[in-house]
Amino acid sequence: MQIMINEIKNWIQEAAEIIKKEIAKNDMTVDTKEDRKDLVTNVDKQVQDFLIEQMHDFDPEAKILGEENGRDQLTDFSGRVFIIDPIDGTLNFVLEQENFCIMIAVYEEDKGKLGFIYNVMEDTLLWGGPEVGVFINEENLPVPADLNLAEGLVGMNSSMYRKNSYNAQLMAERSMGVRMSGCAGLELISLIRGKRNAYVSSLAPWDYAAGSVMLDALNMKFSNIEGGPLKFNGRERFIAATPTAYKEMMQLVGQAQN
Amino acid sequence: MQIMINEIKNWIQEAAEIIKKEIAKNDMTVDTKEDRKDLVTNVDKQVQDFLIEQMHDFDPEAKILGEENGRDQLTDFSGRVFIIDPIDGTLNFVLEQENFCIMIAVYEEDKGKLGFIYNVMEDTLLWGGPEVGVFINEENLPVPADLNLAEGLVGMNSSMYRKNSYNAQLMAERSMGVRMSGCAGLELISLIRGKRNAYVSSLAPWDYAAGSVMLDALNMKFSNIEGGPLKFNGRERFIAATPTAYKEMMQLVGQAQN
Repeated sequence: MQIMINEIKNWIQEAAEIIKKEIAKNDMTVDTKEDRKDLVTNVDKQVQDFLIEQMHDFDPEAKILGEENGRDQLTDFSGRVFIIDPIDGTLNFVLEQENFCIMIAVYEEDKGKLGFIYNVMEDTLLWGGPEVGVFINEENLPVPADLNLAEGLVGMNSSMYRKNSYNAQLMAERSMGVRMSGCAGLELISLIRGKRNAYVSSLAPWDYAAGSVMLDALNMKFSNIEGGPLKFNGRERFIAATPTAYKEMMQLVGQAQN
Repeated sequence: MQIMINEIKNWIQEAAEIIKKEIAKNDMTVDTKEDRKDLVTNVDKQVQDFLIEQMHDFDPEAKILGEENGRDQLTDFSGRVFIIDPIDGTLNFVLEQENFCIMIAVYEEDKGKLGFIYNVMEDTLLWGGPEVGVFINEENLPVPADLNLAEGLVGMNSSMYRKNSYNAQLMAERSMGVRMSGCAGLELISLIRGKRNAYVSSLAPWDYAAGSVMLDALNMKFSNIEGGPLKFNGRERFIAATPTAYKEMMQLVGQAQN
């Protein structure tokens, strides 16, 4: 596993170099996908292609699920699966040139083995899994304090908050405050580091795959909003929190009208 | 003015050292002010006292308006006024140990002369004013592109967004997305750097004083939510944006039911 960890760290560093060079060149091509706020750039595609190439070289048998280039469906999770978000937070990447992440997860026989979330412009890598522990760069991260809902900050999707989906507004009200970064990777980094106590959003598999592996390794709770396992098939409502905050939030979900 | 700029930069660096030492000591005293989410720590007070001492040494005649220690009212803005937020984003400071700022503004005869916003943990200083221009660290910042509302990200206060105050939800909907950081300084840095096109919140004078000076120097628009001048007296609804986005948002404010 150490060989694979080192390989993936190298891929991420090289991918980050590609991204930084493209930012410096400043001639990105931006296209929309499902709506005018759902962006993809030539850089997202280029980085995913680069990562897939490395993954194929490393393990020609591995299956790949990725956000771009028609790689976004996978039904067979047997063997080794790499799950890629080449640029998580593309809107921030395009508009802010910061606050975006590269995310890679490794699953084997349907079980999360390794997760990597790299905040590119801040140069912060969170990585690890149940067998190796979780690290920020090379420093081991402890299990975060089991804060209750009232003791911490909740990251949240703006649409769920606005519509009060699943009592989202009440969750926010009972917490210390709501935060919105526009980047699942950043929210998950904050949760994993114990700087937030919860995160609620509508996510695709490549948004939650890497984070889930690390949350699992730190005894944090996560599921779809109904409390069931994540489907790794299309977008679904995602909730993750400290064990105590998770229990409180799932009670609020149960009492919700919408 | 150059002497004062250098002095203030030194104060900010020393204040940041105090804050970082206190984080390392990890025995902060946290109290609540108006409600359980309105926090103040011994560090906020200590940093404000330190800054006031430097200001008195530099100019014994100067008046001071600051968030803590009963310095939060000032009626006479003649002569030189220093406006201080020792730690903007105290909730983030306590819970995240990041995403907070030191802010200092200098007003003379009621006119903004200099503003300083320092993202302590990122080590990014925005500073400047109408007479000297605006800088990030030592690099001159250009006037941001005059993005319209649909082209950029809007920073927003969670309560105004939830209640749809002044059509806040429609502003967010027409933009590329809404962001909430829990720190006015960070939102204003993003706006001043052209990474966001607008910011709407409920702010006290020490929250908007430094940012306003720099926004003014870059021909950006800001006012209270009714379009009038800021009162520097208690909390009020604040709006700031690129000139085009400001015009669009003020139209939405005019059409609002609440």
